[in-house]
Amino acid sequence: MIARRPSCIVLGAGGFLGTNLCRRLVASGARVRAFGRRSSFPDELEGAEWYQGDFSDSVTLASAVEGHDIVFHLIHATTPQSANVDMAEDVRQTVMASLALLEISRQVNVKRIVFVSSGGVIYGPTTLIPTPEGAPTDPITAYGISKLSIEKYLALYHHLHGLEYRILRVTNPFGPFQVPRKSQGIVAVLISRALNDETTEIWGDGSVVRDYIFVEDVIDALEAAAVDESDTRVFNIGTGHGRSVREVIDAIERKLGKKILIEWRAARRVDVPASVISIERAREVLGWKPKTSFEEGLTQTIAWWRSRR
Amino acid sequence: MIARRPSCIVLGAGGFLGTNLCRRLVASGARVRAFGRRSSFPDELEGAEWYQGDFSDSVTLASAVEGHDIVFHLIHATTPQSANVDMAEDVRQTVMASLALLEISRQVNVKRIVFVSSGGVIYGPTTLIPTPEGAPTDPITAYGISKLSIEKYLALYHHLHGLEYRILRVTNPFGPFQVPRKSQGIVAVLISRALNDETTEIWGDGSVVRDYIFVEDVIDALEAAAVDESDTRVFNIGTGHGRSVREVIDAIERKLGKKILIEWRAARRVDVPASVISIERAREVLGWKPKTSFEEGLTQTIAWWRSRR
Repeated sequence: MIARRPSCIVLGAGGFLGTNLCRRLVASGARVRAFGRRSSFPDELEGAEWYQGDFSDSVTLASAVEGHDIVFHLIHATTPQSANVDMAEDVRQTVMASLALLEISRQVNVKRIVFVSSGGVIYGPTTLIPTPEGAPTDPITAYGISKLSIEKYLALYHHLHGLEYRILRVTNPFGPFQVPRKSQGIVAVLISRALNDETTEIWGDGSVVRDYIFVEDVIDALEAAAVDESDTRVFNIGTGHGRSVREVIDAIERKLGKKILIEWRAARRVDVPASVISIERAREVLGWKPKTSFEEGLTQTIAWWRSRR
Repeated sequence: MIARRPSCIVLGAGGFLGTNLCRRLVASGARVRAFGRRSSFPDELEGAEWYQGDFSDSVTLASAVEGHDIVFHLIHATTPQSANVDMAEDVRQTVMASLALLEISRQVNVKRIVFVSSGGVIYGPTTLIPTPEGAPTDPITAYGISKLSIEKYLALYHHLHGLEYRILRVTNPFGPFQVPRKSQGIVAVLISRALNDETTEIWGDGSVVRDYIFVEDVIDALEAAAVDESDTRVFNIGTGHGRSVREVIDAIERKLGKKILIEWRAARRVDVPASVISIERAREVLGWKPKTSFEEGLTQTIAWWRSRR
């Protein structure tokens, strides 16, 4: 998809989206530097150059980024839950570090930054569903406020210095290489625990609605955003369809052919009741659309989990 | 206006709005702690208690805020120009310090924070004029991004902890006690320099349009916001009418009866072409409206400058 063997650096390459993105970029023939914290080379990133570093260490970051055309910025050091516990620390680790990235990118002439923002938390509680990009942004977690700030700084650097960028507000991705971590990724949690006959804790009554998207479709969007020449720069990436946690549980139970053990907990203040986004803009401008049904995505995800056992 | 002699603390009491607000609050019978950096007591704040401290020193801030019902947060350590030079420092001095204020306010049971945001920079370049509160917020200066972040954190603290707040997005205030500083406050700059027959530097060609509001009208709005019981929390405060820099110069020349010496400079990237806000919401919800015409405001401002000579 990306022509002329451009050089890309993926920040957050050891994570769920990062791993999938690196694998796709390598397969497409791009030169890929995979930047992450792990000290050992992740086997699944064969073909990429692993570059160990901490995102908030700007000296390391500068030497990592230099010489690359496209920066995929997939790092967020906190979660929607943890960010509210220490908001100042969230600002330091995400906003301040991203400001350093912007200044570095300007200085070493990066061509474009593709930033993964959040379709799930940036709008906050809204009755406008599916939510378009122009909707008000009133997050109820500091995680969302930091994502929003970084979006605004990207636009500002473009205005002041001409640094090109695209922002993808991704909803709830699921698929291979998603490992349960810090209570994120309910599909991965449910499948991995069910395969081991373990109980899963769920906050709320299962009515919370989210827009789940298979990871390969997100990677399609990241590739499209890296080469898009339009003057539109912020895109929702999801399916445009919502399903409740109960529906997700039911679907996985059907696929696995067994009941999943759930321990229901009190709802959290950071969870909006429903998050479903409109993807018309990405369809029209990027010519992108999600290709994998939720059922098919589950089948592939379960197959991946089984292959690891 | 404020009943039952509540105790107020004004953060940024040594500044232009802060001085005017403290004087009004003292006159209305409130107990007022005036927080600012000056080590000597400012004569114009007679009747208030002066509390010297640095906003970014959270220990001092905590002891200053404790025991007060209402916090007027009028501090922004940078200007629209300087914030773009070191955005990380702007985040530290404004966003991080405001996050500390929020946490302190929650812990010591502050009743309400009234925050002065910016009607002039928070919307960015827009064709929607006069601009209502619900318009997109796309600042072209880091100053505006920090203001926006603080607004979002206020809403988040209200959501998570019930801490009450009001936000006033004030446009370009002018009037007594505005002293030219860091190239802000064009009315004060023009009058003070013209009275001394000094030349004034102006960026751009004089076509930039702003919404100038007399300071006493802003103070009316701050008082109204301190007691408002509605569930609306963000208000534009201006006049709803724009005038160009050239029109401002002409008006002051007419009042002074002499030509003002101008040195025209190249336009700056942080200046939007026009900023005029809609004030319908404040009219309806707060029952507030600006009472002083631009001409009358100029007369009072010139009289104040003359009284200082």
